[in-house]
Amino acid sequence: MISRTMQQQVNSSSIIRAMFEEGKRLAALYGADNVYDFSLGNPNVEPPAEVKQAIMDILNEENSTTVHGYMNNSGFEDVRGAIAASLNQRFATGFAADDILMTVGAAGGLNVIFKTLLNPEDEVLTFAPFFGEYRNYVQNYQGQLIVVSPNTKDFQPNLEEFKEKITPRTKAVLINSPNNPTGVVYSAETIASLADILRAKQEEYGTAIYLIGDEPYRELAYDQVEVPYLTKYYENTIVGYSYSKSLSLPGERIGYLVIPREAADYENLIAAANIANRILGFVNAPSLFQRVIAKCLEAQVDLEGYNRNRELLYNALVSYGYQCIKPEGAFYLFIKTPLESDLEFCTLAKSKNILIVPGTSFACPGYARIAYCVAYETIEKALPGFEALINEVS
Amino acid sequence: MISRTMQQQVNSSSIIRAMFEEGKRLAALYGADNVYDFSLGNPNVEPPAEVKQAIMDILNEENSTTVHGYMNNSGFEDVRGAIAASLNQRFATGFAADDILMTVGAAGGLNVIFKTLLNPEDEVLTFAPFFGEYRNYVQNYQGQLIVVSPNTKDFQPNLEEFKEKITPRTKAVLINSPNNPTGVVYSAETIASLADILRAKQEEYGTAIYLIGDEPYRELAYDQVEVPYLTKYYENTIVGYSYSKSLSLPGERIGYLVIPREAADYENLIAAANIANRILGFVNAPSLFQRVIAKCLEAQVDLEGYNRNRELLYNALVSYGYQCIKPEGAFYLFIKTPLESDLEFCTLAKSKNILIVPGTSFACPGYARIAYCVAYETIEKALPGFEALINEVS
Repeated sequence: MISRTMQQQVNSSSIIRAMFEEGKRLAALYGADNVYDFSLGNPNVEPPAEVKQAIMDILNEENSTTVHGYMNNSGFEDVRGAIAASLNQRFATGFAADDILMTVGAAGGLNVIFKTLLNPEDEVLTFAPFFGEYRNYVQNYQGQLIVVSPNTKDFQPNLEEFKEKITPRTKAVLINSPNNPTGVVYSAETIASLADILRAKQEEYGTAIYLIGDEPYRELAYDQVEVPYLTKYYENTIVGYSYSKSLSLPGERIGYLVIPREAADYENLIAAANIANRILGFVNAPSLFQRVIAKCLEAQVDLEGYNRNRELLYNALVSYGYQCIKPEGAFYLFIKTPLESDLEFCTLAKSKNILIVPGTSFACPGYARIAYCVAYETIEKALPGFEALINEVS
Repeated sequence: MISRTMQQQVNSSSIIRAMFEEGKRLAALYGADNVYDFSLGNPNVEPPAEVKQAIMDILNEENSTTVHGYMNNSGFEDVRGAIAASLNQRFATGFAADDILMTVGAAGGLNVIFKTLLNPEDEVLTFAPFFGEYRNYVQNYQGQLIVVSPNTKDFQPNLEEFKEKITPRTKAVLINSPNNPTGVVYSAETIASLADILRAKQEEYGTAIYLIGDEPYRELAYDQVEVPYLTKYYENTIVGYSYSKSLSLPGERIGYLVIPREAADYENLIAAANIANRILGFVNAPSLFQRVIAKCLEAQVDLEGYNRNRELLYNALVSYGYQCIKPEGAFYLFIKTPLESDLEFCTLAKSKNILIVPGTSFACPGYARIAYCVAYETIEKALPGFEALINEVS
């Protein structure tokens, strides 16, 4: 009785979520402390204290029908202005309130922009490995996701293959840096080259190709690495942002899109994205949390907690003989699986009560993602299992 | 550069929102106190005190990473259980937590269920007058909205025409009671007859036809009128609910779907709706407000405030000679326009600084919607304008 596309979805429903359920089952069997669940990107670091304070202040000081009420589908104008000003200060950009559209998280924002842009059969390019939901977001609007194969040397985008895969039907290119699942930050050099390629192809085909940045991990960068701000490299850029990770608010569904004035067809883009936000049923980003984040633009989660996890896990795994790039951002580590089949390896890991996600879920077989947004002690207790695993299969 | 469907949307963007902008323009010209904006269903009654108290209690007593974190895409299990128990107590139903899916408002819920059900070209029937967004929600999934023409005698559904318009492609019937824009409550007799027709047609065609109830106005009912609970009349029923009006939280985007166990293909429906919530980019209903509403299941906005508005406006308009049904629910009054053209009449009303929405927006020309979720004084001050209007055109 359900639709054909949803029947397919039900039949092959997300491996990541299946892992989550498996984790609960193992926890019930062995006790939660003895199951090491590295399968989900659910931040374990608590939101900064400013969040609670902001909520209290808003409830005590602002008008409740405004705080919880409808506003323009794009969001509260003062909130959008505050975000624009903050971005301008940090990145020397020139955004106005009108260039910001508040969204139901980054996932909501990506759906809004694909609804806005895609005609059936339009192509969206992305680089493996990538977050598997991108395929759904593009298919929701009958688009085609075209995947550029992974560059497993350093997990920067494979620009040679990228160039060959751009066609007159290419409507957008979706990138994610710091990257899920690798933790790699795309370098300024990479972005500049990618922009050059896009400009040349736009001219060759007489089309506009939008670069869409999915940036929920922007603030989670280590070792003072720079995460290039995309609009400074390429005119037709749209940035999707979320506070899910930067303020540990993933359940609250609060984020925004930046649609800069220099983007092709700007007026229509802005108008259509506003309407798309409404007709897709988001209507507007949750109102209280719009007001909250405007008061927390300088706040940060405890990045040092994630960094300690990263150092512990990376150094230990490398010492056991695992191969992986040291991640510069996000809270993921992407190992080459010591078995050729990542699916087999992840199943084997389960026998040690270790839950990790096969690279196949990210279009990158032979690898596995370890989400280290967990307690430090969880990593400590799981390390012997990781060591035993590689020894067993070597 | 934007998609063809969104270009059409931009070209003909919502009359209701245009009214909203017009209201702001007039307010800037004449002062907000001298513009009588009856165009938007934005509750002016503040949320009950329990909402603020619930937020404070949750922030002080519960774990912040849980309160603001991810959960199952269906929502927190304890919240879903509390809602099920509350419904069971009020309506003698037998729902379990698993039958409830938390959504980003009713608009999010309707999108989730249409994504779940519709194959391209599938038909969804609805009764005029109806909330114009329904057309978009169905078209988002390539469905066809089939409209049953209005029964302007009492604005109960026109069941004769309904029966004729059901086909083997009819996948769902969408009803909205208390109704936007008429304020009419569909009677138990109407619902029972509608259910009989659906059962007969299901048998005739060998199909399942889902009855979808859009019920954001359920708690806004006056004069002790009963709003029938749909699942008690028809097996294949799905109920969409929102706290936007019942707790005056429209900006927070919090609601739920009820998918009862007796619905055809229940297991697939539940699984697919959960996945649809995720892949459409909602991911989950906002987490703090899930927890808030679970603590406010007995709370109510000041219904008496809306009732006073209703009585004042209805009695005055009728005394001036306007024709309209006395609404039993919601906060709308649907008048027959004294000019044949509702568009002309609404334009004329603007000359008196009165903003109302043409019935054409609800597929019911010759009528106009007056949203009385405004200050009592706004109605008092607008009444002379309404009286002058009807006298001018009679």
